[in-house]
Amino acid sequence: MKKIGKQTIVFEHKPCVIGNYSIVGPKEGKGNFAKFFHQILSDDLFGQDSYEKAERKMFLSAVLEALKEANLQTTDIDVLVGGDLMNQIISSNFAARELQAPFLGLFGACSTMVESLIVGSSLIDGNGFRNVVCVTGSHFSTAEKQFRYPLELGTQRPPTSQWTVTGAGATILSSQKSDIKIVRATIGKVVDWNVCDVNNMGGAMAPAALETLYTFFEDTKTKPADYDLILTGDLGKLGSEILRDLMEFRGYKLESNYGDCGQMIFSNDQKVFQGGSGCGCIASVFNSYVIDRLKSGNLKRVLVVATGALMSTISSQQGDSIPCIAHLIELEGKNV
Amino acid sequence: MKKIGKQTIVFEHKPCVIGNYSIVGPKEGKGNFAKFFHQILSDDLFGQDSYEKAERKMFLSAVLEALKEANLQTTDIDVLVGGDLMNQIISSNFAARELQAPFLGLFGACSTMVESLIVGSSLIDGNGFRNVVCVTGSHFSTAEKQFRYPLELGTQRPPTSQWTVTGAGATILSSQKSDIKIVRATIGKVVDWNVCDVNNMGGAMAPAALETLYTFFEDTKTKPADYDLILTGDLGKLGSEILRDLMEFRGYKLESNYGDCGQMIFSNDQKVFQGGSGCGCIASVFNSYVIDRLKSGNLKRVLVVATGALMSTISSQQGDSIPCIAHLIELEGKNV
Repeated sequence: MKKIGKQTIVFEHKPCVIGNYSIVGPKEGKGNFAKFFHQILSDDLFGQDSYEKAERKMFLSAVLEALKEANLQTTDIDVLVGGDLMNQIISSNFAARELQAPFLGLFGACSTMVESLIVGSSLIDGNGFRNVVCVTGSHFSTAEKQFRYPLELGTQRPPTSQWTVTGAGATILSSQKSDIKIVRATIGKVVDWNVCDVNNMGGAMAPAALETLYTFFEDTKTKPADYDLILTGDLGKLGSEILRDLMEFRGYKLESNYGDCGQMIFSNDQKVFQGGSGCGCIASVFNSYVIDRLKSGNLKRVLVVATGALMSTISSQQGDSIPCIAHLIELEGKNV
Repeated sequence: MKKIGKQTIVFEHKPCVIGNYSIVGPKEGKGNFAKFFHQILSDDLFGQDSYEKAERKMFLSAVLEALKEANLQTTDIDVLVGGDLMNQIISSNFAARELQAPFLGLFGACSTMVESLIVGSSLIDGNGFRNVVCVTGSHFSTAEKQFRYPLELGTQRPPTSQWTVTGAGATILSSQKSDIKIVRATIGKVVDWNVCDVNNMGGAMAPAALETLYTFFEDTKTKPADYDLILTGDLGKLGSEILRDLMEFRGYKLESNYGDCGQMIFSNDQKVFQGGSGCGCIASVFNSYVIDRLKSGNLKRVLVVATGALMSTISSQQGDSIPCIAHLIELEGKNV
């Protein structure tokens, strides 16, 4: 592992993806990535008596199924790295309790999938660890009641809002070789352009995505056209348009190889305004569509940029603006 | 970096502590470590208009002062690693916004100080990073209102309760050499012995400390007497007694070289029942007393075991027990 430029890491041993799994709720299962998800729940309670327990069960199931694909047991996990949106990341903590693997809890809001991949890749590339499991996700009904209003209230949603994805994704990183390699990463800085509207997360997070993408291109001396796909986490329709504008101002025009998971996860007739959000958005799309396409060779060089809004209900109620972050990883697929 | 035994890491390049700072509230400044803390606030609002902002300012001050000691600028930080007890770790997020360094947010409850030291040491030992800043802390008045009752209510405290420490600590880890080295670490598993009483955190967390300490001794083939000091995070009086009993049952009797920050931070006349707790407890003691004694050579080999209770108010209200974790680092002082 070595650092290049201002804040980019090169993984010299190229940690590989040897297992992955995605699991989503019924609404996500009617969206644009339906045929790529491994499991679509028919009931978002997942057989549990609370949405919080359903969220944990998604985390646990995603990890266990990803381990199966990698032919590993829970005892083969050197460390489990994960986090979620719940206060005190309880979904990850309780899933970790069942898995009985050494556990590092993270909080990066919706950037957690990539944050965990960066921490995991670093632990492997430093030559210490063999298998690291990264997991995150979210649940519409737990996030909605914690961050916004009781579900029963049926509160009207503003047009700039996004819909928290019910879904989880797990990735097994390893020092074993596979066709999918993690080659570089940029750890983001906290960016805050003074957006205070918690119903416009895309607008708040776009500047963080800008800073991380811009820094990565400068650090690596590459440009958007060098990649088959540049995918942001969950900026949604408005946020991803803002990012396109901002990147063009900075001299890196994003073309048709750019997309946003939030913008794409739901279909146009699903009435979710700006699209999907939540840790589960990029976690489920990355662990299905992206890895599938890298494995098949359809995609060769991919940048995944997960964005996170780092406020709490307390900071917002006290009048603070929304600090945001974006973390980036670069992946290589088959035959690169 | 290499893994030994079940879950212990050996840092082959021995990352060093090149700066540290501790800052505490007025009550902590009347406790047993008063002469070791770098800064004692006369007012726990720290000139701010909310306790939340005071907490952030402690984080920021601790980092800036630790950087000064290390003769570094904020631009020298390769990555800032930190977390706290606030929902969505806002204290760390907002401090990171001011510092403008690449940031990895963690959540390990009161285990965060050691969790951040492990992640930081791994990033340095993997040869990629030069300077990593680790920061955490807590504030009695923000934690109390978030996890328990409004401060104005004056709710009576049960005898098993602990007092959340108002304090923060920052450590600068580096590939530069110094007298204080991080040599080994054990990442904890989530342990849950079905304690549901959120007013008995020491009792809930003691089994996690047991599992991590026991695993470390087994993995390294060492014993308690090999260390000058074994320090747990914030088990408090009752919790640390439970740990002594449990360790003896497992064949590793803890003698007078064992202590607990929660048990020791306040003096006996301060009416805090079982002692201190919160991320700031071990963060302030580690970044004052422990590092001071390692620097002077009074302590040569030290184990620091930070424990964390990973529940939320939601999980407790829904009847879940308290999942706990403990992370361990081993340090070497001058002339070892």
